[in-house]
Amino acid sequence: MTVSAAVPSPPPVDADRRAIPYDRDDRSNYSAEMIEQRRRFVRECTGVELHHVASYSFDPAVVRGNVENFAGVAQVPIGFAGPLRVNGEHARGEFLIPLATTEGTLVASYNRGMKVLNLSGGVTCTVSADCMQRAPVFVFDSAREARAFRDWAEAHASEIRAQAEATSHVAKLLYIDPYLSNKFAYLRFNFATGDAAGQNMVGRATLAACLWIVEHAPGVRRFYLESNLATDKKASHVNVMRTRGKRVTAEAVIPRALLLEHLRVEPETLQYHAGVANVGAFLSGANNNGLHSPNAITAMFIATGQDVANVSEGSAAIIYTEITPAGDLYLSITIPSLIVATHGGGTGLATQRECLEVLGCWGKGKVNKLAEIVAGVVLAGELSLAAAISSLEWVSAHERYGRHR
Amino acid sequence: MTVSAAVPSPPPVDADRRAIPYDRDDRSNYSAEMIEQRRRFVRECTGVELHHVASYSFDPAVVRGNVENFAGVAQVPIGFAGPLRVNGEHARGEFLIPLATTEGTLVASYNRGMKVLNLSGGVTCTVSADCMQRAPVFVFDSAREARAFRDWAEAHASEIRAQAEATSHVAKLLYIDPYLSNKFAYLRFNFATGDAAGQNMVGRATLAACLWIVEHAPGVRRFYLESNLATDKKASHVNVMRTRGKRVTAEAVIPRALLLEHLRVEPETLQYHAGVANVGAFLSGANNNGLHSPNAITAMFIATGQDVANVSEGSAAIIYTEITPAGDLYLSITIPSLIVATHGGGTGLATQRECLEVLGCWGKGKVNKLAEIVAGVVLAGELSLAAAISSLEWVSAHERYGRHR
Amino acid sequence: MTVSAAVPSPPPVDADRRAIPYDRDDRSNYSAEMIEQRRRFVRECTGVELHHVASYSFDPAVVRGNVENFAGVAQVPIGFAGPLRVNGEHARGEFLIPLATTEGTLVASYNRGMKVLNLSGGVTCTVSADCMQRAPVFVFDSAREARAFRDWAEAHASEIRAQAEATSHVAKLLYIDPYLSNKFAYLRFNFATGDAAGQNMVGRATLAACLWIVEHAPGVRRFYLESNLATDKKASHVNVMRTRGKRVTAEAVIPRALLLEHLRVEPETLQYHAGVANVGAFLSGANNNGLHSPNAITAMFIATGQDVANVSEGSAAIIYTEITPAGDLYLSITIPSLIVATHGGGTGLATQRECLEVLGCWGKGKVNKLAEIVAGVVLAGELSLAAAISSLEWVSAHERYGRHR
Amino acid sequence: MTVSAAVPSPPPVDADRRAIPYDRDDRSNYSAEMIEQRRRFVRECTGVELHHVASYSFDPAVVRGNVENFAGVAQVPIGFAGPLRVNGEHARGEFLIPLATTEGTLVASYNRGMKVLNLSGGVTCTVSADCMQRAPVFVFDSAREARAFRDWAEAHASEIRAQAEATSHVAKLLYIDPYLSNKFAYLRFNFATGDAAGQNMVGRATLAACLWIVEHAPGVRRFYLESNLATDKKASHVNVMRTRGKRVTAEAVIPRALLLEHLRVEPETLQYHAGVANVGAFLSGANNNGLHSPNAITAMFIATGQDVANVSEGSAAIIYTEITPAGDLYLSITIPSLIVATHGGGTGLATQRECLEVLGCWGKGKVNKLAEIVAGVVLAGELSLAAAISSLEWVSAHERYGRHR
Repeated sequence: MTVSAAVPSPPPVDADRRAIPYDRDDRSNYSAEMIEQRRRFVRECTGVELHHVASYSFDPAVVRGNVENFAGVAQVPIGFAGPLRVNGEHARGEFLIPLATTEGTLVASYNRGMKVLNLSGGVTCTVSADCMQRAPVFVFDSAREARAFRDWAEAHASEIRAQAEATSHVAKLLYIDPYLSNKFAYLRFNFATGDAAGQNMVGRATLAACLWIVEHAPGVRRFYLESNLATDKKASHVNVMRTRGKRVTAEAVIPRALLLEHLRVEPETLQYHAGVANVGAFLSGANNNGLHSPNAITAMFIATGQDVANVSEGSAAIIYTEITPAGDLYLSITIPSLIVATHGGGTGLATQRECLEVLGCWGKGKVNKLAEIVAGVVLAGELSLAAAISSLEWVSAHERYGRHR
Repeated sequence: MTVSAAVPSPPPVDADRRAIPYDRDDRSNYSAEMIEQRRRFVRECTGVELHHVASYSFDPAVVRGNVENFAGVAQVPIGFAGPLRVNGEHARGEFLIPLATTEGTLVASYNRGMKVLNLSGGVTCTVSADCMQRAPVFVFDSAREARAFRDWAEAHASEIRAQAEATSHVAKLLYIDPYLSNKFAYLRFNFATGDAAGQNMVGRATLAACLWIVEHAPGVRRFYLESNLATDKKASHVNVMRTRGKRVTAEAVIPRALLLEHLRVEPETLQYHAGVANVGAFLSGANNNGLHSPNAITAMFIATGQDVANVSEGSAAIIYTEITPAGDLYLSITIPSLIVATHGGGTGLATQRECLEVLGCWGKGKVNKLAEIVAGVVLAGELSLAAAISSLEWVSAHERYGRHR
Repeated sequence: MTVSAAVPSPPPVDADRRAIPYDRDDRSNYSAEMIEQRRRFVRECTGVELHHVASYSFDPAVVRGNVENFAGVAQVPIGFAGPLRVNGEHARGEFLIPLATTEGTLVASYNRGMKVLNLSGGVTCTVSADCMQRAPVFVFDSAREARAFRDWAEAHASEIRAQAEATSHVAKLLYIDPYLSNKFAYLRFNFATGDAAGQNMVGRATLAACLWIVEHAPGVRRFYLESNLATDKKASHVNVMRTRGKRVTAEAVIPRALLLEHLRVEPETLQYHAGVANVGAFLSGANNNGLHSPNAITAMFIATGQDVANVSEGSAAIIYTEITPAGDLYLSITIPSLIVATHGGGTGLATQRECLEVLGCWGKGKVNKLAEIVAGVVLAGELSLAAAISSLEWVSAHERYGRHR
Repeated sequence: MTVSAAVPSPPPVDADRRAIPYDRDDRSNYSAEMIEQRRRFVRECTGVELHHVASYSFDPAVVRGNVENFAGVAQVPIGFAGPLRVNGEHARGEFLIPLATTEGTLVASYNRGMKVLNLSGGVTCTVSADCMQRAPVFVFDSAREARAFRDWAEAHASEIRAQAEATSHVAKLLYIDPYLSNKFAYLRFNFATGDAAGQNMVGRATLAACLWIVEHAPGVRRFYLESNLATDKKASHVNVMRTRGKRVTAEAVIPRALLLEHLRVEPETLQYHAGVANVGAFLSGANNNGLHSPNAITAMFIATGQDVANVSEGSAAIIYTEITPAGDLYLSITIPSLIVATHGGGTGLATQRECLEVLGCWGKGKVNKLAEIVAGVVLAGELSLAAAISSLEWVSAHERYGRHR
């Protein structure tokens, strides 16, 4: 048996294969000429003229640090929903919501939910935890030495913190969760990262700590900076339990009369559907017993320059409903790992910054405000879609708005 | 105890609250004047001038069906990586890869992985399943009647299929998976949907089938068109096991000499890290024992007009490595629920279509080609990041490219 | 770095280490003399006289096929609960329930629940699926060949069935679920196994099928009879979704007045607790959103000679409650992977058979009856413990009955 | 629609239904006469004479506190395996292992694995965490108050600890993990419980703490002592991550020559199977990527008087293998939630105590010793079954020993 048969015999490699134009002096890589060279390269390779991709309104120098081999932009349509009244601790008032999406009916559906939330007095949003992780793993000769290492790391927490925090003015090491299995010790470092999402900052901080650890701790045989316990860019239970990014809850009490008038549904029907869908989520092993929170999260992430791949983590949610003694609907959702930033990453780019400004979330100290708004929008969408499913409007709404496809 | 105290007493609702400009005649909603009115409304509400958001290169009429309350675009920078040699059944040859992202180093990292894959003869990609779901739930008086309903549905499969397929020329009902719990019967409808992602199409088809079912099946007490067994816009185990969208695998054998020369890492080191990270994923309850497949998926989804919220489903992956008898590295990844389209949704928009054309994926019969290319890109990223972690280059690469933040 | 340091240097191995007395002629292994020799061996090694372990009431020859190196018995106390009125399809009437346990209050708590269920008219039980699995894995050179194999296996289903069913008069191959990942094809064989739990029977049948497959299918590189997709002796999502053993539901409507009178709790309180505990189960990633179904399952498994390690699979459950329009409590639980037998395994042993006879479950065609009764008992326990938690009686009941510890 | 139709119209309840004989004076309940009355009651109800169940060798008074409505015993056959050399910190030396089981070949298979482990120098076992939980939930008006409560609880940790620890001389509150979702605050209390499994003790301690909390903390609307975050008697991810009972690892390096000679398998074959089975576990969503650890755990739990329903938690395991530079097999397994006791529960009963004495685990300070031994036995079984699967001996061994069924 030979594994190498797994790949059909490779074609002869073209030693002269041309590469995407690139300059060793990174500043040149964002010059108009170089960018045009790249589009020419694309045309020569594929015959496709990047007419629309080439149309952008900003100086390409701003995307240095955000993208390599820059050649243009994706233009993702933005629709506005709202305003939405948010009763947060950071976000207080009414907010217009930019949603970058290509899914017909999405904006209309969120808009409908917001209207009902507004009439109910708005949505109450609360950030209850905030931390960003990097989780290195240390390999030992045996479980006993891994255990000794865990104890050593706890005893040396202050030195480890000092090493980590020396790398940044922002990152603060909150605590380290150790996880032991076999002969491995995983340390899940939890940091506060200010207005940044912080993955890079905590990577640097954790690496610095680890280099010190590797030098000082007895018995380490191998070390890797990442080990799937963070967990970055994937859905995981550790994120649901222990938070990654912001843990944020949105809540509202929607009066029965409003549900009947505006959504043509009784609270009990929504409550019943939530119960059935919860059993469905249990059966399917879903990381979300609600309906479609990632729709709002994704559309706002694209609009505001977030790292959209973090929708993986952000896809988790826990919905809970009850009928109040007055017969109204209490509706709430907790998003346990919402990774947002108002500084760094793509937040400073041209359209992204404008959208953050529309939300009043541009600048320092705004990240929890953004988290609250996102959660509020999510709740509007849960309400709207739940009502649509319950009243069988759902598909027909798709029909009405999305009929050209 | 009263639940209504959950929300601080609401501020008086402004009956005259102005709404986002909108016309009952939907065609007017995409006129230049109406769009400008919306931006004016944003400015009046927030003081923000949407200068960049207002800059787009297409006729707004094209986004009708994709977004409501359209006011402009998010400009997401695109960098190109590649070309990548893909040895698929549908994608054969070299492909330039548009990646829409704001995460520095991402394009460079994928590019590095592609180079090594190319030198290894390319990446072999295989689509092994293809289906899209809608999962209604039917409520009965008891488990016994739910069971009888399951049997009834199996006995009436052809009528159900006829009803479902009458709604579309494209959607074909492949099979129905029934799941029973308590007094509920969940039917997970699985459709082939051609080049479309198909969520809307299967929603319509399933609704038609359900209306017929509700009329003919004995004992149904309630019915909801969705129940969290599909599962749409969330990570779930049912998707990992039973596929949602495309189930696609990318594989390559990377010669030891190439790993050493280009990535400065031995196959055994990558293999060791994969083992440790796999235990980490087990501990963390992650839906992915690899490294960062959603990075490629997200960047390609934005570039090519996919429904980006489906990164939720797409975040799952199963990586597997082994050392071949010759001492090379066999590296593979299976993405069990990759939802892609080359028709419908955002695929026809201006920049999105150009990017699909660059990939040779615009037009009929191209969706599996796109799935193969995405998987190949994912594998390039796994290789590159794994090598970076193993050689401790990783953070320093972030430092080098992402240092302006 | 050397891994071998993982184990402290081993002590010199005693070449003359004595082994547990054992005879090559297996019939001798259950003779009184050989058994006594073993107990003597235990005494010589440890100084412990097995006085009680040596006390059993049956001819040791009967445990041949059940245990090797037999030396005596564990005496596990049995308490009776009930009678419980079961309105099943197979179990109809009142049943006295033998519970083998050492956990104080358990029998009393179940007894209390049964009383209330009886007064409510009994518990309705329904078996909705029945299958036992073995899941071999086949390794190929690549994903493409694994996919071809899946299609080949579907095309050769009748030959595969013939091979499998030739090994037994009982086992019937119901269907094969294929799961593909990387270059592996997992086939989850699903069998009907009559009154036996059937793990051995399906192991033999699947092996026969696999030997035929390996001989005839193209491209198989490796084959293993088990692969963690069955999944035997572990909790898993595939078992929750696709059943292992019996999928059985117990339901009852408990009148409000009975709850108040006998359990001092309102239906709404139980309903509320179920909602909160459901969110707890979601957070904790539990395979059971109920309270303690494994208590009944374990105690009945020990009493009736089941393979008690199957409590692993049996630990999963889905509870669902609602308040009826009349204000009563609808309470139901589905156990998706309850592995029971009334033939084979330990069912024919002395005390085990008596307990099966008490349940009217000894002999042919009784296995679904047993499954129904177990589910009914489980529901009684959920009701009783839920009420105790809700009324804060719970710990005090432990105090009252379990105070000697 | 009425839910009450879920239950077929109940038969008239027999007001004179006889109950299992029981006395209000609990001491009488364990008298020979009362026990005999119960068996007579069983005979009258069912016609079954409990001949074997009635055969036990101890004074029934000892089971007071362990079982109500006592009527006899289940006699579960015990076979001995071993001796097994354990290189633990608490268990050092060779141990004869009592396994109470009815599954043919189980004892023989474990025995085979032990022999190879012994020849390899024994199995190294390490307990790396030890805690028992109770997880009450507190309900608030909103998420914000739940968050305030979490902070309040952290600020009042010492008062809470004092209240909890006042209930027992043994239970020590180690730490409290708070989990927030929606408007709920779950507090997962972690205790050290000495030689007891401790579920009752921590229930009492947590209740005392909670009564104090409810009295002093602001805003609590409801409180339940249990909430599915402990998690008791179920498999869960929180237990895998955060430990329940003992977290224990067993490791060994098995020389290649021994594998070949005694198990007829190469290390690489076992390693390969572990990799394939690991992907299988990922696909199936299993809580265990090994083979059958619950077999050993269950058999030892029954023999030694553990709470066997805790096999639910104990079913989780993480296996990891590698080939050492010398070409030997490093094999290890971590059981993250093994709940054992050497005091309390069923440990003091007649046969159970004898089995603990055989293990040298009767009396104070022996619980970690027991945990180490159980883990070592588990590893022996993993090795033996893995070799059997790899060499295709597995089913034939079932055939050989279990052929009478």
